[in-house]
Amino acid sequence: MAEQLTHPLVKDGWFKETSTLWPGQAMTLEVKEILHVEKSDFQDVLVFKSTTYGNVLVLDGVIQATERDEFSYQEMLTHVPMNSHPNPKRVLVIGGGDGGVLREVVKHEGVEEVTLCEIDGAVIQAAKKFLPFMSAGFEHSKVKVHVGDGFPFLKDKVDSFDVIITDSSDPVGPAASLFQAEFFELMKNALRPGGIISTQCECIWLHLPIIKEVMGFSRQLFPRVEYGFTTIPTYPSGQIGLMVCSKDANASIKKPVRQWSKEEEAKLCRYYNSEIHTACFVLPQFAKAALE
Amino acid sequence: MAEQLTHPLVKDGWFKETSTLWPGQAMTLEVKEILHVEKSDFQDVLVFKSTTYGNVLVLDGVIQATERDEFSYQEMLTHVPMNSHPNPKRVLVIGGGDGGVLREVVKHEGVEEVTLCEIDGAVIQAAKKFLPFMSAGFEHSKVKVHVGDGFPFLKDKVDSFDVIITDSSDPVGPAASLFQAEFFELMKNALRPGGIISTQCECIWLHLPIIKEVMGFSRQLFPRVEYGFTTIPTYPSGQIGLMVCSKDANASIKKPVRQWSKEEEAKLCRYYNSEIHTACFVLPQFAKAALE
Repeated sequence: MAEQLTHPLVKDGWFKETSTLWPGQAMTLEVKEILHVEKSDFQDVLVFKSTTYGNVLVLDGVIQATERDEFSYQEMLTHVPMNSHPNPKRVLVIGGGDGGVLREVVKHEGVEEVTLCEIDGAVIQAAKKFLPFMSAGFEHSKVKVHVGDGFPFLKDKVDSFDVIITDSSDPVGPAASLFQAEFFELMKNALRPGGIISTQCECIWLHLPIIKEVMGFSRQLFPRVEYGFTTIPTYPSGQIGLMVCSKDANASIKKPVRQWSKEEEAKLCRYYNSEIHTACFVLPQFAKAALE
Repeated sequence: MAEQLTHPLVKDGWFKETSTLWPGQAMTLEVKEILHVEKSDFQDVLVFKSTTYGNVLVLDGVIQATERDEFSYQEMLTHVPMNSHPNPKRVLVIGGGDGGVLREVVKHEGVEEVTLCEIDGAVIQAAKKFLPFMSAGFEHSKVKVHVGDGFPFLKDKVDSFDVIITDSSDPVGPAASLFQAEFFELMKNALRPGGIISTQCECIWLHLPIIKEVMGFSRQLFPRVEYGFTTIPTYPSGQIGLMVCSKDANASIKKPVRQWSKEEEAKLCRYYNSEIHTACFVLPQFAKAALE
């Protein structure tokens, strides 16, 4: 009989997500069974089956994706930049080792090649074993996978991608460098003319100072920078931001330049639609005032 | 020396919000000090000082308001219907015993009288003592308070109010009757011509069946029914819906018919602005499909 797995963050049948990034508050999820516990070369990897959110991926104690609500994040982080670009053919995903963003990128038929650069191969392996609803993205013929740090990977890439999507964890641990100006400069250089990036950019309810800093240096680099958000119950405070930057000063970011028919949208998407593409950029007064 | 208060839902210094309404998940907040514990005639009343969310009001184990994020809910539940009405003079608030909605209603200078009908006087008293940031609403000269059940209160009211706002807890316990068709019929009869109601209407991530039911009978009663939401970290899944119904088939609900100047908006509001008034009605694909 297999030994029952344990993890220090699962107590009395509940996982609790505490962090210095959101002091005094913590989401908790009821655990049915711990499926996987691993110290990879980069981080603590935990996968558990929850009682009501399906399988859950946790890195360094922070929920990355649950089967029940991950689609919100993956769809918005992907389709907002993709549908803001007139014809994205070459796409790069930094991070995203669970495969969820890949799954969304390949829904755009014009894409010729999508490369994933994930620092931690253990995440990819865990996703393939326990999170098939996301890792299905790896199976598409247009997908190429590079296991390694996004920073050096980007260094020799010039004029290479139409869209770059950074699907990272928080700015502590292995993803810290992905919130630095140098990284955004590398992304800019790696973009083709008219290229667009979208990056996970924290939560207006928790991290306005981080968001202001990232938007500040991005505005030095890109002529167009917009900040939007998507709602997602299992991320801290129930939502997560995305920052979209374009090399084209006249890019239409807040309105999609391409859109699916209503029928295709209903078939392809569970969160994204062309109206919410626009609405996601409308911020509450306190965030609007802080980020203007 | 005063005895240290205790409450069964505060353990090891943390409050945990479990409920059969959101099985398998629970928000937790770190508690600095329990300020008030009471079994009122209607419910369990708990007020605590949290480490990072200020003072927190909890009824029957469910967070009603925290000092840090309550403005989102109060402003959206109030200003969306108020600014959808061309000239609201008489306003009724059902529930809302913390005073937060009152505080927002009286920001509209055209209001002549606002009546609050709260079933539980203990909530009003606790708010006045521990939640002055909300109960300040009670001090305005235009405010009248009626302590009693909203259901019988409405029975003899005909043609009386321009806007009715139902700021209730969840559809279990004392607020259960506020989610019934009969209550919506009473509200409709109590409205003047062109009158508008807005009601707390649960969360699309958790309660689509409840929302569908409430919208279903509301559509039988009102020619215009719209569903929007606001983000709020300490409500279950990080957001809460509001349903807005108008007696006027041509009412402009999704676009404000009145709006403050940008300067007034910045002074009066922390969440609401005229753009988010419109954006709050744009729903993610899964909710849009379910509620159409």
